Amino acid sequence: MILITNDDSVHAKGIKVLTTIAREFGDVVVVAPETNSSGLSQSLTMSRPLRVRKILEQEGLHIYACDGTPTDCVKLGSQHFCPRKPNLILSGINHGSNSSINILYSGTMGAVIEATANGFDAIGFSLLNHSTDADFTPGIPYIKEIIAKVLQHGLPDDVSLNVNIPDLPAEELKGIRVCREAKAAWTDSFEERHDPAGRPYWWLTGEFVCNDKDPNTDEGALCQGYVSVVPVHPDYTCFEAIPTIKELFNTSER
Amino acid sequence: MILITNDDSVHAKGIKVLTTIAREFGDVVVVAPETNSSGLSQSLTMSRPLRVRKILEQEGLHIYACDGTPTDCVKLGSQHFCPRKPNLILSGINHGSNSSINILYSGTMGAVIEATANGFDAIGFSLLNHSTDADFTPGIPYIKEIIAKVLQHGLPDDVSLNVNIPDLPAEELKGIRVCREAKAAWTDSFEERHDPAGRPYWWLTGEFVCNDKDPNTDEGALCQGYVSVVPVHPDYTCFEAIPTIKELFNTSER
Repeated sequence: MILITNDDSVHAKGIKVLTTIAREFGDVVVVAPETNSSGLSQSLTMSRPLRVRKILEQEGLHIYACDGTPTDCVKLGSQHFCPRKPNLILSGINHGSNSSINILYSGTMGAVIEATANGFDAIGFSLLNHSTDADFTPGIPYIKEIIAKVLQHGLPDDVSLNVNIPDLPAEELKGIRVCREAKAAWTDSFEERHDPAGRPYWWLTGEFVCNDKDPNTDEGALCQGYVSVVPVHPDYTCFEAIPTIKELFNTSER
Repeated sequence: MILITNDDSVHAKGIKVLTTIAREFGDVVVVAPETNSSGLSQSLTMSRPLRVRKILEQEGLHIYACDGTPTDCVKLGSQHFCPRKPNLILSGINHGSNSSINILYSGTMGAVIEATANGFDAIGFSLLNHSTDADFTPGIPYIKEIIAKVLQHGLPDDVSLNVNIPDLPAEELKGIRVCREAKAAWTDSFEERHDPAGRPYWWLTGEFVCNDKDPNTDEGALCQGYVSVVPVHPDYTCFEAIPTIKELFNTSER
């Protein structure tokens, strides 16, 4: 049994493609946001309860829309809408990149991190094309291969996969490269506008800037035409900084 | 110049205490959510613009409420509401723990991760007491010490601090311990209720379960009465899993 969610909403083309692929591997339950939930990171709904709307219930395929976040969908979906414990949780296929620092804001990858933190094997898939009618076809063989290998061998404890697919024709995709997240940043800026009453408001805008094009990063791999696979874990600890920070507070353990 | 935000809202007691502390170190700009934004992780507001309401503008202290997320507050605050680049970004003092896995959901720590990803030194402070009138007094000397040391020495690139403070009287606080995040999980469950029309809805509930009480974890330190300081970085890559995942896909780089 495979549970699927995303952040572009249950109505997005990407989740429909992923659902069709996943059906080849077994029963599928989809619990995904009713509306676009991009940029929601790993946020939780705590101040109000969740509603769920049944979209399809047929042999081997159940689809539900939830008015919560992608992380809510993983929690509620795995506990209340899967008839048995899923052996894999998938998220995507996201319309747009979740490479590098984008993983931090991504609802799609928030759902994956959530799944891992709850002990599930999980994979997030993203295509480097934001358009609603993006062509997911060239990446399908890679997605199938990755799902098959994870179902067969499992993932290490606490590890999930962040998979990004270049927006290229099939013949230009060069294969899979396992790599690390690239270091990058958004040079955010805000566009200030004024409403008819003259009061200001600010629209988020910005540009993704990545100077870390090492071939062993996701950005480097994607630039070279490879599907990037980054093993990720739900732990922000910067282990290599522990000695430095211990030194900073070395007189403090009283 | 210090920029301060949080997720409990600009009206919370914790951010007022932190603002008073920070004023001892220089000019302060507060840009914090207008309403409670707990559990918002590092989410961004992309589908609507942001509004900002001036609360206080006096010599050395400017306070604004923003209708966005804590991460929005860091972006907008550092770019539009600080007269010069802040040399430190603080978040908190959170009403409730952000130790271990709680960092993933925390809007307070989402703001800190955001600040780090944008090149700022940043620290998140949390007290292990959820109540709105929690007593932050015992932790104040530790908060001052940590801010002073970070202002004096700086933090390593890409590293911020997740500081949690036990809810204990001053004489029972034993000092500062630099450590890693504990592995833990929420045993989430959902309480199903029915509205007057008989339709179901689900409230998130759950229990925090941590069996990783190694003294070198935040949970272990906090249990022993220490203020926990975890160096964190905005990178989810699980480096030690890269060889295993490479082996899983070893035939794939075509």
